[in-house]
Amino acid sequence: MEELTYIDLKQCILADNDQQADAIRSLSREKGFFLWNIMSSPGAGKTTFILDVIRRLKDRFRIGVIEGDIESTIDAQKMQALGVPTVQLRTGGDCHLDAPMILKALESLPTDNLDLVIIENIGNLVCPAEFDLGADLPSMLLSVPEGDDKAVKYPLMFSVCRALVVTKVDTLPYFDFDMEALRRNARILNAGIDIFPLSAKTGEGMEAFINYLIQQINSK
Amino acid sequence: MEELTYIDLKQCILADNDQQADAIRSLSREKGFFLWNIMSSPGAGKTTFILDVIRRLKDRFRIGVIEGDIESTIDAQKMQALGVPTVQLRTGGDCHLDAPMILKALESLPTDNLDLVIIENIGNLVCPAEFDLGADLPSMLLSVPEGDDKAVKYPLMFSVCRALVVTKVDTLPYFDFDMEALRRNARILNAGIDIFPLSAKTGEGMEAFINYLIQQINSK
Repeated sequence: MEELTYIDLKQCILADNDQQADAIRSLSREKGFFLWNIMSSPGAGKTTFILDVIRRLKDRFRIGVIEGDIESTIDAQKMQALGVPTVQLRTGGDCHLDAPMILKALESLPTDNLDLVIIENIGNLVCPAEFDLGADLPSMLLSVPEGDDKAVKYPLMFSVCRALVVTKVDTLPYFDFDMEALRRNARILNAGIDIFPLSAKTGEGMEAFINYLIQQINSK
Repeated sequence: MEELTYIDLKQCILADNDQQADAIRSLSREKGFFLWNIMSSPGAGKTTFILDVIRRLKDRFRIGVIEGDIESTIDAQKMQALGVPTVQLRTGGDCHLDAPMILKALESLPTDNLDLVIIENIGNLVCPAEFDLGADLPSMLLSVPEGDDKAVKYPLMFSVCRALVVTKVDTLPYFDFDMEALRRNARILNAGIDIFPLSAKTGEGMEAFINYLIQQINSK
């Protein structure tokens, strides 16, 4: 009997992605920019958070944005309104960004003159976690209304991120959310993960995160 | 030059899925149960909502549950605690349920003696929308904290659902959420979608939804 040829398409796709992620890492070293990938569920507050970070850091760093969406350009327009160069990646159905998309987007940004490139990924707690984008800081947002049990249910995302930002902490009084349970469960999966509870609406906790981000950028 | 053989794997997968979805529809007609598929982002409140529906309907209908999770069995255990037959589908990384998984799960449920089978899909507003599960009522939850702009950003999900349940309306005072904007944007994509704002926590709006569900089940 002939030997069966077995092609694991997913492994092929991910291996190709990892190569391109390495190319992104080389490019960011060469050009000297810091690449920050932000992932979360839909509605966790990525856009509001990013806009606040840009407002606080745009006089200190030259910032560019890669805005991932399935459809619509409303978030990208908000970034542009702050005067930062922005590239819209519209996936037209795809549930994640991958490294080839990011490489393509970086070609359209003035990376010679940028210190920080922010990626707003597709709102999805599952698929984006599988794709290495070559980021210096892969990170995720979890909003208080989503609940403290998400690390148990979406473990890969919590495993691949170096920073976990817990958003909308101003709504803690209205939800049964156990911050210690979240910390415990996240650290079972990822002992070194840095955790920042904050509210982009009230500003609570933002300064601690901004100081962390500045330190990360400067130590690259 | 030889003709290029082009295989669109995604189309193959979806065509196969649709065949299996037809098999599910035949099975549910034959056995006489109503199949209800519930999709949403992570943390929109699927489990809390389903538990409340079961409590309100379990003396009226014989209910079974198919519980989809990437990891963990904590939700399935809550369903079982209410005394309803429950099958756990653990995808181990996959971002959606598909029709073959549902057919398999239905084999493990006592479908001869069930009136209603509830599917709790993977928490994801993207991928589950692509897979027809043969459900009589494909539906989605959107929670108030996620924001009123989600129809614009995740249009396929809003297009394929017959019912949109807006959860956590008890938190409306704490968020900038425009219910009319949501209705308008959802109906641009899906003119006939039935919309139910409610809170499983306070009970507000639950009766209207329960009456709708009873009517849907009885009119099958």
